[in-house]
Amino acid sequence: MNEELDETSASVRLGELGLALPAVPTPVAAYLPALLSSGQVFTAGQLPFVDGTLVEVGKVGAEVGPERAAELARIAVLNAVSAAASVVGGVDGIRRVVKLVVYVASDPSFTGQAAVANGASELLQQVFGPRGTHARSAVGVAVLPLNSPVEVELIVEASAASF
Amino acid sequence: MNEELDETSASVRLGELGLALPAVPTPVAAYLPALLSSGQVFTAGQLPFVDGTLVEVGKVGAEVGPERAAELARIAVLNAVSAAASVVGGVDGIRRVVKLVVYVASDPSFTGQAAVANGASELLQQVFGPRGTHARSAVGVAVLPLNSPVEVELIVEASAASF
Amino acid sequence: MNEELDETSASVRLGELGLALPAVPTPVAAYLPALLSSGQVFTAGQLPFVDGTLVEVGKVGAEVGPERAAELARIAVLNAVSAAASVVGGVDGIRRVVKLVVYVASDPSFTGQAAVANGASELLQQVFGPRGTHARSAVGVAVLPLNSPVEVELIVEASAASF
Repeated sequence: MNEELDETSASVRLGELGLALPAVPTPVAAYLPALLSSGQVFTAGQLPFVDGTLVEVGKVGAEVGPERAAELARIAVLNAVSAAASVVGGVDGIRRVVKLVVYVASDPSFTGQAAVANGASELLQQVFGPRGTHARSAVGVAVLPLNSPVEVELIVEASAASF
Repeated sequence: MNEELDETSASVRLGELGLALPAVPTPVAAYLPALLSSGQVFTAGQLPFVDGTLVEVGKVGAEVGPERAAELARIAVLNAVSAAASVVGGVDGIRRVVKLVVYVASDPSFTGQAAVANGASELLQQVFGPRGTHARSAVGVAVLPLNSPVEVELIVEASAASF
Repeated sequence: MNEELDETSASVRLGELGLALPAVPTPVAAYLPALLSSGQVFTAGQLPFVDGTLVEVGKVGAEVGPERAAELARIAVLNAVSAAASVVGGVDGIRRVVKLVVYVASDPSFTGQAAVANGASELLQQVFGPRGTHARSAVGVAVLPLNSPVEVELIVEASAASF
């Protein structure tokens, strides 16, 4: 697989991007941010929190524009990466990204969920390189917890050394 | 992992809680209630059926209040546990809970999906103890099959003896 | 397991049904159509594209009727099978279907998501026989990318020879 040829670690890429992983987001209720099972990490649904504050509320296509929503998807997926990293000994314990789901709280007339989700997809490819490509679903939902405009969840593979 | 220290089986905990697993819910269409694959059990989306009757209909935040919705999430996840148990030789064939998704049929103004989903999360922790913690997504959707207020799906790990 | 008794390959069944797998759908954005991880294939969310054209738009229960929506679910899941097949050396590299999620863009009054999803479930059973049964969730969402009436995603098991 060609991803084996890519030697640059995710931690190095994060540095090159000028990004630091945020603190692991505190679940808003009775669950874990992420869990390792049989070599795969499943994250909880992650919202665009920055330093404990939800940075935007409202429906995409109404109160929130699509470009801003793509930025929010990027913020939320970085939280998801942080959550996943926390159960495999850091971001370099993630072998590759597998699946991304992006829920977009959408005005019923808004049909640009794919472009919103690209904010998350592109961040994953910037951080993980060829190992950051993934299968993805983007869905427009009625409303999200706390009136968040986006929510993302990830499945990633853990490195063999991590489990 | 500290869950190894917890010796109380889920069947004993169910008894202590005064709960019996419901009969495995009959799928409302052409699919299976649960399926074992590579040591993980994937359940179908489960609705709050009791004895074959959907106990409530309507949107949460409109016809259905949030406390009632949390009870419905608890009922639905008990059906999901029953479905999972049915493919691993009973509830003690479940090694641990991995992932919970809670879909909440929501009035567009309702943003309390996390509290609704806690009805399911807390039941899982009561039944499975430390092995019942899980990653979770809670999402507010437009409408659910049969006008159900909630739908839940589970991924759990099977005990090695079960597969 | 009784599925072991079924000797008819999916490629043969497709021929008997007069069906050809469509070309692997091109993702509408920055992601992969499907990805193999630890013996499981995760597909991206798939829309009812035929020859690169989304064959219908609108909400089910409003612009799109339920029977037509079930046909669209069938088209979308055939695209998902094609995507999964592409990463395991063809459709016979799929050992069995595991999980199907069917998102139905729904008028808030439409509650027949299960019948819509049956369009996908029944196709899987026609193509894969007893190995096509699966766990399933059907959900009514506010809106889908490109105003698609349905979106489906699959998890399947790869044959041991495929990974």
